[in-house]
Amino acid sequence: MHINDRTLHAIEWIAQEGHLRIIDQTALPHSLRYREISSLAEACTAIETMQVRGAPLIGITAAFGLHFALRQAAMPMEQACERLMATRPTAVNLRWALTRAQADLRRVPVSGRAEAALQTARQLLQEDALACGAIGDHGLTVIRELYARLGRPLNILTHCNAGWLATADWGTALAPIYKAQRAGIPLHVWVDETRPRNQGAALTAWELQQAGVACTVIVDNAGGHLMQQGSVDLCLVGSDRTTASGDVCNKIGTYLKALAAHDNGIPFFAALPVSTIDFTMADGSQIPIEERAADEVRWLEGVDDEGRLTRIRVTPEGTKAGNPAFDVTPGRLVSGLITEHGVFDATPQGLADLQAALGATAA
Amino acid sequence: MHINDRTLHAIEWIAQEGHLRIIDQTALPHSLRYREISSLAEACTAIETMQVRGAPLIGITAAFGLHFALRQAAMPMEQACERLMATRPTAVNLRWALTRAQADLRRVPVSGRAEAALQTARQLLQEDALACGAIGDHGLTVIRELYARLGRPLNILTHCNAGWLATADWGTALAPIYKAQRAGIPLHVWVDETRPRNQGAALTAWELQQAGVACTVIVDNAGGHLMQQGSVDLCLVGSDRTTASGDVCNKIGTYLKALAAHDNGIPFFAALPVSTIDFTMADGSQIPIEERAADEVRWLEGVDDEGRLTRIRVTPEGTKAGNPAFDVTPGRLVSGLITEHGVFDATPQGLADLQAALGATAA
Repeated sequence: MHINDRTLHAIEWIAQEGHLRIIDQTALPHSLRYREISSLAEACTAIETMQVRGAPLIGITAAFGLHFALRQAAMPMEQACERLMATRPTAVNLRWALTRAQADLRRVPVSGRAEAALQTARQLLQEDALACGAIGDHGLTVIRELYARLGRPLNILTHCNAGWLATADWGTALAPIYKAQRAGIPLHVWVDETRPRNQGAALTAWELQQAGVACTVIVDNAGGHLMQQGSVDLCLVGSDRTTASGDVCNKIGTYLKALAAHDNGIPFFAALPVSTIDFTMADGSQIPIEERAADEVRWLEGVDDEGRLTRIRVTPEGTKAGNPAFDVTPGRLVSGLITEHGVFDATPQGLADLQAALGATAA
Repeated sequence: MHINDRTLHAIEWIAQEGHLRIIDQTALPHSLRYREISSLAEACTAIETMQVRGAPLIGITAAFGLHFALRQAAMPMEQACERLMATRPTAVNLRWALTRAQADLRRVPVSGRAEAALQTARQLLQEDALACGAIGDHGLTVIRELYARLGRPLNILTHCNAGWLATADWGTALAPIYKAQRAGIPLHVWVDETRPRNQGAALTAWELQQAGVACTVIVDNAGGHLMQQGSVDLCLVGSDRTTASGDVCNKIGTYLKALAAHDNGIPFFAALPVSTIDFTMADGSQIPIEERAADEVRWLEGVDDEGRLTRIRVTPEGTKAGNPAFDVTPGRLVSGLITEHGVFDATPQGLADLQAALGATAA
C-alpha cells in the first residue's frame, strides 16, 4: 500500500533472502515490527497466533508455508497441507490456496515442487493485490452513488480489520474507502473496536490514521445506536467465507451490525475476493466456527501510562469465558457482495450469476 | 443481599456515624472496597465516577446527597437538586428521587428539612429493596414457565449489570435469576462483558460468582451468534428509563441484543422498578443520551500478571473515540416489562395498564 511516500506490505516475499517478511500484527498499533518466516513451523505459528490474519492473507501465508515445507523436505506435500489447514478452521482461503497449490504441484515432478510452490505462492500474492484493487474500484461505485444521492460527507461503519493489513494490498472492506478518499469523496469511518482481539481499535484505526482517513473508534455496542441516530450511511465489512446462498461468515459481531443496518434501512455490503466464496456450501449453518482461547476474552493487551506493553485481566479470578471467533450473517441482511468481478446479490441467484461470470472469465 | 453467610449491600446508611457506606464499584472485581460518603460533593463524585451506578442506586444516592447538602447547609434545596441532577443525564431515577424528596420537604419547615430528607432517602432505600424483591418474584414466574416448557437447564443472557450492586437489594434483571436459583431451577448465565466500562465482566460476573450462579463471560459481539445457535433461551436486561410507549433506554448495546433476540424468536424482557418509567415521555427518541469521556474507550483497567491494578491504552496514540453510554430499544422488540407490580406489555397500552394499576394501588 502506497501511503504518502512510503510503501507498506502486510506480507512480502524477499527473493534474495528466500524468506517471507510480515508485519507482526500482534504488535500493532503500538509498534511496527517485522518478522521473517522461512519454515513451515514459523508459517503455522504466524497464522495460529494471528501475526498474520484476515482471510486473504492467511491463504497467501499458507501457500508460502507449503513452499517452505517442500524446500525443507520436512514432510510430504499432503501432510504439510493438513498441518496448515488445521491452523484456522473458519476462513476458506486456507483450503482454497492449498488446493490450488496442490493442483499446480501434481503436474510437476517431485524434485521441482518446492520451486513450483513458490511460484504459486507469489502468484497468489500478486493476484490478491489485483483482486483487492478491483474490489476497491467496484466498491467506489457504491460509495459514489451514495455520495451523489446524499450530497454530504459520508459516515461508513466497519467491523474488524479488512484493510491492506489483511490482504496483499488495498484490503477488501477498506479498499473502497481508500479509493473514495483518492477520488476526493469526503468521508469519515466509524471503527468498531472488535473485541476480543480489538482488530478495529488496533489495526483499522492505525491503518486509517496512516492514510489520513478521518475515523473514530467506538465500542462494538455503539453501532446500533449510531445507526438509529442517522450517523451511519453505509456499513462495509469483509468476509472469511461466503456460501452459495449468500450467507456471510465474518468476525464475531458482524451479524449484530447487519441486523441494525437492516432495521434502520442502511446499506450493508460485504467486500470479498472470490477466493473466499465456498460454492460447495449450501448455507452458513454448515460453516465450522472457530472457538478460540478464553484468555482472549479475560485478558487484554495494550500500553500502560509509561508506554510499556502490558496485559491486564478484566474479569474476576476464575471466571469462565466463551470465545466464538466468527458469526454468520444471513444473506437476507446483506445488500450486496462487492467482489473483484463486480457487485452481486447475496442470494443463491446472485452467487449463481457470479459463478457464471467466473466461468465466462475462465473460458 | 444475603449470600451464604454474608450480607452485602451496594449502599447502606450507617446511622450511628451519620454517613452512607457504599461499595466502590470502580474497584471491583479485583477488590471489595468500601467508601464513606457524608457530603454533597462526595455524593456527586460517587455518581459521576460511577463508584455507584445503576438507575435505582443513583436515585437513592442522590436522595442521600440532598440530605448531606441540607445538613451542611451548603446551598438551597433547589440548587443542591440541580447539582445532583447534572451528574448523569439519562437515568430518570435521579429526577424521580429528587422530585419526590422535594415534594416531601416542601411540607416541612426549613429547620426540619435535613432530617426529613434523610427520612425520605431511607424510605427510598427500603422501598427499592422491596420493589426489587417483587421484580424477582414476577420474573421468576417468567423463568418458571420457560423452564416448564423447555424442560432443561436454561441459558439466560444479560447485558451490563442490573444486579444487587445496581439497587438496594436483589437487583432488577438479576433478581429473577437469584430467585430462580433459590427455587432450584437449573440455569446458566451468559454475561456480556459490556464495553466500554465492562460492568458485565467486572460486576455481573463477580456478583453471580459470589452467589454460585453458573456463568460465562462473552464479548458483546458474541450474543447474536449464541442466539443463532440455540444457546440462549431468554434475555434479561435492566432499564435506565422506559417511556410511555414501552421503549427501553438501557446500557449501550442493549438494542443490538434485542434485535438478535427478535430475529431468533427468543424472549427479551426488561426488568425495572416503576421509578425508572418516564410516563411523561412519549417515545425513546426524546431521551438525552449521555456521551461519556473518550478515554473510557481508549483505556481499560484491570490487574496485570502480578495482580497490580493497571490501565492500558488499546488504540493508537491520538485516535478519536466516541462513547455514547446508552441506547434505546424500541418497545416492538421487548417481550415484556417485569416490574414490582407484575409483567406488562412494552406498548402504550401496557404502560397505560401499569399506570392504571399504580393509580389503583395509590387510591
